[in-house]
Amino acid sequence: MPRSKNFSRKRRDVVDAPAPLFNRLALIGVGLIGSSIARAARAKGAVRQIVATAQSAATRRRVAELGLADQVVEGNAAAVAGADLVIVCVPVGVCGAVAAEIGPHLGPGAIVSDVGSVKGAVVRDMAPHLPAGVHFVPAHPVAGTEYSGPDAGFAALFVGRWCILTPPGGTDPAAVEKLAEFWRRLGANVEAMPAAHHDLVLAITSHLPHLIAYTIVGTADELAEVTRSEVLKFSAGGFRDFTRIAASDPTMWRDVFLANKDAVLEMLGSFNEDLSQLTRAIRRGDGETLFRHFTRTRAIRRGIVQIGQDSPAPDFGRPHPDLSVEPLPRPYAASDES
Amino acid sequence: MPRSKNFSRKRRDVVDAPAPLFNRLALIGVGLIGSSIARAARAKGAVRQIVATAQSAATRRRVAELGLADQVVEGNAAAVAGADLVIVCVPVGVCGAVAAEIGPHLGPGAIVSDVGSVKGAVVRDMAPHLPAGVHFVPAHPVAGTEYSGPDAGFAALFVGRWCILTPPGGTDPAAVEKLAEFWRRLGANVEAMPAAHHDLVLAITSHLPHLIAYTIVGTADELAEVTRSEVLKFSAGGFRDFTRIAASDPTMWRDVFLANKDAVLEMLGSFNEDLSQLTRAIRRGDGETLFRHFTRTRAIRRGIVQIGQDSPAPDFGRPHPDLSVEPLPRPYAASDES
Repeated sequence: MPRSKNFSRKRRDVVDAPAPLFNRLALIGVGLIGSSIARAARAKGAVRQIVATAQSAATRRRVAELGLADQVVEGNAAAVAGADLVIVCVPVGVCGAVAAEIGPHLGPGAIVSDVGSVKGAVVRDMAPHLPAGVHFVPAHPVAGTEYSGPDAGFAALFVGRWCILTPPGGTDPAAVEKLAEFWRRLGANVEAMPAAHHDLVLAITSHLPHLIAYTIVGTADELAEVTRSEVLKFSAGGFRDFTRIAASDPTMWRDVFLANKDAVLEMLGSFNEDLSQLTRAIRRGDGETLFRHFTRTRAIRRGIVQIGQDSPAPDFGRPHPDLSVEPLPRPYAASDES
Repeated sequence: MPRSKNFSRKRRDVVDAPAPLFNRLALIGVGLIGSSIARAARAKGAVRQIVATAQSAATRRRVAELGLADQVVEGNAAAVAGADLVIVCVPVGVCGAVAAEIGPHLGPGAIVSDVGSVKGAVVRDMAPHLPAGVHFVPAHPVAGTEYSGPDAGFAALFVGRWCILTPPGGTDPAAVEKLAEFWRRLGANVEAMPAAHHDLVLAITSHLPHLIAYTIVGTADELAEVTRSEVLKFSAGGFRDFTRIAASDPTMWRDVFLANKDAVLEMLGSFNEDLSQLTRAIRRGDGETLFRHFTRTRAIRRGIVQIGQDSPAPDFGRPHPDLSVEPLPRPYAASDES
């Protein structure tokens, strides 16, 4: 086994860098999230070694080409051998199967975690396969982009974002704190909550927004009266904002909706009631109700910008093309009001 | 009346700049759109003079401070005197009242236009007040941000965006072409269509997305089970994308929904059917239907990026904070697959 590069680097170059938190990180699945963890963990010296595996040979090849791990191996069992941190970065629908595969090969004292957007189902599916002496600390870094695969990741993805831990009752607090420290090292803020509460919170902050975006983008594409070309051309009226998250990974999102069915259906119920209320206001010409509602929602945006969870720049900071403005000879003087 | 600065500039500095298209542009209302028109028209030398007015004294004062117009006047009638182009940039609900005010003061041959997001109602409300000999060419630049007011505008807002003209039957084609040329000078692409078709197209590309964003942001804010603090913190899961357009100007949007009721309700009907279908798939655990739908919607995003109506950068190009990465001593070598 080659000498750890981070360890060498620490001794030679960055004497005050914090020590690695784990000796050997095993990543099972190296998509957007897995590859971002690899990049960030390496950049921050959070682990001495990274071993990675992925289901498809093409992904494993690409991970090796990108140099994301010290070792790229075939097979989940092989990946976890000797690892003191295992992070499962696969769609939530296959987390249980992965746990069943790796269970017998986990070393005592290892921490097993995941990155799934649903926690109740993941705990239900994974926990039974994990042997005593292994610490199971489910996690969900609330970060991502609309792109998928090992090329899409980047080291700064988690900076300033929240990572939610949902340790089952009885989990060793030291293991929870060690994983929290790992995520903080990657730039994230960490919060712990029960899995069931996580699933409610994410149903409204993530799952329902995705479902609605997927719906309206599909609706627009199937209209008889409006062509697809028109939808694309005039999308700057608001529609294009929805298309970004409706371009997210289909497998991941299919699994999320199947795994968090109850919470999503509950939030859908509230959403439908509110949409009916606004629809009724439109039908009746009740401008007062519309205005009151539209004023209230501005405050939420302000709150998100204030706590640094979004950019205050117009249009999310989207680039606007140049007007190729010629310099003006002198400022225009505005006359006073007449 | 002071000598036109654009005209001077053209003669002295920019000999090959195209000649101004209009002598005197009157802007009625100077919010995000009106102030962007002022900035762009000046930057591109599209008009010789700009006179502006706004309903509130505070806005008029600010427009003067910003130097957005050659003259800032009080009263719509005063603003249009001597103008060969009048652009009404007020919420669609008051376009009719403005037309009634300015009608008697419009000079023969003047072009009157607007920027409203609804065209059928605007034509219905404005046209009766405009005297013979005046050319009415309704327009809708499909561009904007979530910010409002004269400070929010910028000259490049319309570059690469579409401006839709909906001239009523019988409008002088020369007047239509002249206004089209004005918008092209500001950087926009121009397309003409019947007002009724415009209202259908925008109902799906703009009005329904806004209604849904307003709805879900309100839903999130009223949940008993999830706190507002949690909604804000975990908004990077998708929710924050919706908050941008739910922060748009409440008066403008109230008027849009009242003025385009029929088309919005029609699109809402289609959306609700599609949402019911996906809801049913979730309830039944029908992953196949979900996967098929989620795959299809990716193509729309690709189309919008391909025609330059959105950025291909992840997260709309939102800034991501630094990880403050220390330089690595040498690249990690990935081992071959085992």
